[in-house]
Order: sequence, then C-alpha cells, then structure tokens
Amino acid sequence: MRGVIMHAPGDVRVEERDDPKIIEPTDAIIRLSATCICGSDLWPYRGADDVHDAPMGHEYVGVVEEVGAEVKTVRPGDFVIGSFWASDNTCEICRAGYQSHCVHRVLMGTIGTQAERARIPLADGTLVATPGMPDDELIPSFLALSDVLGTGWFAAVAAEAGPGKTVAVVGDGAVGLLGVLAAKQLGAERIIAMSRHAGRQALAREFGATDIVAERGDDGVAKIKELTDGLGAHSVIEAVGTQEAMMQAINSARPGGHVGFVGVSHDVEISGELMFGTGIHLHGGPAPVRRFLPDLIQLIWDRKIDPGKVFDLTLPLDQAADGYKAMDERRATKVMLTV
Amino acid sequence: MRGVIMHAPGDVRVEERDDPKIIEPTDAIIRLSATCICGSDLWPYRGADDVHDAPMGHEYVGVVEEVGAEVKTVRPGDFVIGSFWASDNTCEICRAGYQSHCVHRVLMGTIGTQAERARIPLADGTLVATPGMPDDELIPSFLALSDVLGTGWFAAVAAEAGPGKTVAVVGDGAVGLLGVLAAKQLGAERIIAMSRHAGRQALAREFGATDIVAERGDDGVAKIKELTDGLGAHSVIEAVGTQEAMMQAINSARPGGHVGFVGVSHDVEISGELMFGTGIHLHGGPAPVRRFLPDLIQLIWDRKIDPGKVFDLTLPLDQAADGYKAMDERRATKVMLTV
Repeated sequence: MRGVIMHAPGDVRVEERDDPKIIEPTDAIIRLSATCICGSDLWPYRGADDVHDAPMGHEYVGVVEEVGAEVKTVRPGDFVIGSFWASDNTCEICRAGYQSHCVHRVLMGTIGTQAERARIPLADGTLVATPGMPDDELIPSFLALSDVLGTGWFAAVAAEAGPGKTVAVVGDGAVGLLGVLAAKQLGAERIIAMSRHAGRQALAREFGATDIVAERGDDGVAKIKELTDGLGAHSVIEAVGTQEAMMQAINSARPGGHVGFVGVSHDVEISGELMFGTGIHLHGGPAPVRRFLPDLIQLIWDRKIDPGKVFDLTLPLDQAADGYKAMDERRATKVMLTV
Repeated sequence: MRGVIMHAPGDVRVEERDDPKIIEPTDAIIRLSATCICGSDLWPYRGADDVHDAPMGHEYVGVVEEVGAEVKTVRPGDFVIGSFWASDNTCEICRAGYQSHCVHRVLMGTIGTQAERARIPLADGTLVATPGMPDDELIPSFLALSDVLGTGWFAAVAAEAGPGKTVAVVGDGAVGLLGVLAAKQLGAERIIAMSRHAGRQALAREFGATDIVAERGDDGVAKIKELTDGLGAHSVIEAVGTQEAMMQAINSARPGGHVGFVGVSHDVEISGELMFGTGIHLHGGPAPVRRFLPDLIQLIWDRKIDPGKVFDLTLPLDQAADGYKAMDERRATKVMLTV
C-alpha cells in the first residue's frame, strides 16, 4: 500500500509500505476513507522533534476490513473513528476518562495512518462506529473528530468552558478554532479568539467567537484583561505549545480560573511562583478523545456541528508533501488527504 | 504594644510597636488571644526571602475591641477568626471562592499579627465570629484555622480528595498534617502521609493517615506507585514549596489525577512536557481560607476536629525568638504564642 514516510525534517515522501496485518487478536484493519496532517506533525517537519524514516499520521476514519478473533464491537463494513491513542477503554485510567493515558495505550503515530490502510490496536476500546455509512460530506467532520475536534473539545472541558463563562483561546490553528466551537457548544457566554489571520478570524467567528484579539504576549494579556473588567478570562484554551503561548494563557486567566492546554509542549517552563501567584487551575496533555467520541459522533451525524470546515486544503494522499509544505508555510490551516 | 520584628534573617525580637488605630472605616481592631509562627515565616528567617525590620505574623484569633464606622457584621466583644489575606468577600473573585485573590486584598503579613493587637482591614469581609466565646481549649484549633488548617483544607479540596480516593500528602509540617485531617473529613478512602519523623507520623495517623511512606523523591514516588497498582494517587497534596516536593507530588499522581499545592513556591520550575505527559490537574496558591471559615468554625465549635494538635510548643509572645528557633531546627512543628 501507499503511505507517507518522513525521512528527515522537511523530507516527506509517499512510498510503498507493507500492508498491515492483524498481529494481536484485539487488532482491526481499516481501509482509510481519509487522513490528514496534524499541526503536531510540523514539529518533526521543522526539526523541533527528531525524525528518521518515520511513518507519519495518527488521524483516521475509514471502513473496517478485518478484525482479530477477540474483537467484538466493530465488524467488517463498519465506518469507524478512533483517536490518536489506541486504548483498551477498560482499565482504571480509561474508566476515569483518561484513555489517552490508558495503561495499554499505543500511539497511532508509531503506526502511521497517512496511508491506505492501518492496523488499529485494541479495536474494541479504540474504535467507535458511526450509526451508518456517512455521506461523503460528513467525512471531513468525522476525520476532524479523530484528533483536532476531540483535542479542542478536551481543551474546552479542561478549561471548564460553560454557561456564564468568558473563554479566551490562544492559538488559531485547527485545534484552537475547534476549541472555539467546543466552548460555544458547551454554552460559554463569551469567546475571545486570539488571532491575527483574517481567514482564521472569520472561521473563529463562524464557530462562535464573540471577540477577536489580534495582540499577542503581554499585549494580548492586557487586551483580555481589558475585556474582562481587569480580572481575566474564566477559561483559557492553550493550543500552541510554546512558552509564549503558555504564558499568554496563564496570565490571561483570572485567579481561580482554568487553563486547558493541548499544544504539545516544547521547551515550556512554568514557574511555581507564577502558578502560586495566579491561583489558576492547569490541566491538559494529550486529549482523551475516546471519552468524547460517542457524543461528538452523534452531533456530527445530526449535522449540529461542522468541524470539517477546518480543512481548507484537500489533496490526494500522493501529494502529502505539498500538504506539509502548505501547513508549514501557514497557507493552509489543516490539510485533508484523500485515500 | 508588644510585637515581633524580624530585623534580618535569624534576628527576631519582641519590641514596643505603635498601637494599631482605625484607618479605614472598614477596619476593625482586635486584641489577640493567641498568634503563631508559620512555616512560611521560616523563608525570611533562613534568608530565602528578603527581610528588613519587618513586623511578623499573619495568623490571629482574638476579640474585637473597636470597629470602623462602616463595619456591620462584627462588634466589639466578638471572638473572631480571619485569614492571612484580608478580603472584601464581595468582589467577583471572592464570590467565586478565591478570597485570597480578592481585588482589594491586603496581606496580613504586612500588618504583623505576632503582636498584642492588630488592625484588620475589610473587617466585614475578613472576619467571622464564633457562635460564642470559646473555651480556652478551643483557642489552638481556631488559631490553626487562620492559616494552616484553612491551607491544608484548600490543598485537599484542590487535590479533589473525596470518597473512593487515594490521597498522598507530601510534607509533614502543620499544613501537610492538616491536609491529612482535611482529606479524612472529605471522605478519602486511603491517605498516605509522606514523613520520616516519628512524632509527625503519629499525628498523621491520628488525623486519619492509613499509610506512611518514609521515602522521598523518586523513591517516594516509586512507593506511592507500588501502593496504588502502579497508577499513582488520585489526589496529591504538596505542602512544602521546593522543587523536589513539587516533582514528588506531580509524579505521585495518576494521569487525570489532581495535585493541590500550597507550599509557597521557591525556585520551583515545572516543565510543560511533564505537565503534558502526566496529564494531571495542578491547582494551588495562597489558600482562600475565608471560603472555608464558616464550616470549619462549626466543626471546631462542635469538637468534631481538633486541628490545634499541630501546636507542639506554646510560648508567651515575648519568647517568640525561641519559637522561631525551635521551628527552624524542626524541634517544633508549629509554635503558638500566647498574648
């Protein structure tokens, strides 16, 4: 089958890879309907993470082709969605809603779902089938659910977005934008998107942002304070992963407020004094997307949300390299690869 | 009046100070029944914080002598307790339960309650009267409530201690010990006190600890994991303020678990990667003791808890210097000063 390999930073190629096979009796093999490039794939692409001949991709939707002997909840022919962490969904950590930290978790990025087919470990715990075969127009939204929607949703939940709350969102990538959508769905009263990019501002507004702040860093914090009677936001979503973004997020929250962070942290240091002094709640990490799959599948199936709008460039899998380049140059927010 | 002045690290003297006067119409003057020395007073005593001719003390209980023209809720003759942060208890931050971050807050440490009398700003918001004049034997417990009990309680709440939870407590000072008591009262199933000091271990057990772990650092973390099926504690209280204690706390919590930290952070750095990787919740800072005063006053009044047991040395105010020395040398957990 064809699949994406990143040989080195900036060097992405689509090549012939071995077809996946059932290894464990809990595995399933899916034929991908679509896959995509993640903002976090840009870390190795830009040399910030080590990479060497690695299969790429951890987002996926598709049709089950084959299941191992112990798989009970999905069958060949089912259209399924899973998260970027495979999880058993039965361990104590999973049952507490932290499937991304499952004691048996497998990182899908090590399998590489930017490909025609993929092996999904722990299929019963990982995959959730849609109510039926979705229309093609729903595919982008289901694909978004595999990571960016689930991650934005977790960030909003971690930030305790909800009725009566003012939510600030740091980061205008796909995750930040879907954090806006999640905050809106969770009932937030006011949603401040921090973005200086006209197209992303527009999508943020479409997803529910009530205010846009173009300033960054200390100026951005000052603006958030100005919009919140000097107190700061109740809830802040951090969806970047840099020191500047984390400081902007923490300092934009009011005392007792909540910062939900999902940007993959790179060289971020948080001083204990800052945490002590601000009195905020900090929670984040890899989103337990599996926790949210059933509810979010239904919202998409019922066409109540349209997260697929974050895909502003669609390319065939063979042109994956162009997709990486477009995201790296910020010409595209999120690239879908059709298989 | 007599009051404690710290002239420099290690140089504590009881001297004549001006009697406090009503400055704002929202002030009250109290005559202290007792005051005490806080673990955080040891930071300047040991030279870790700057100090120069500073009045000391931020914990207090006593009888109201005089109130400003606008004070409505307490009257001369009332026995009152307040927190180490004076707060209006009416601003948006106070109403959300974060009185220690009140927009009008005043740090009592700048006033210095290791003295015969003290001015209490924002008296209506800050002070809560007991149901009547307490018996002398209750004074230590009410005094503990002014900071260490309220702080330990907040840590336990921030760590989401509760039924079915395993709670680990890092720090065996007065705050850590009262964190044990709080976790017990909040219904925690299992409480692991981390201490290598026999006397403190015994008090921890008396307050509700079910297990004692003497190991520290990585060994302590390994022990907590061993006691929790390899997962870590649901809730961890950090009551020290050092890098080692914070790392021990974060690494002792399970994914999705909660760390409540109340040790005054000194040179603590928390990496974003650690926060991302562990998936814990982190919340802490100066405890909003005021939030808990009414309920905890009642628990003490009804003799359901006895937090005053953390005082293992009682001295007259004039011997404050001996009290500092005893705490610095860890000969005493917590020193009460009678006035």
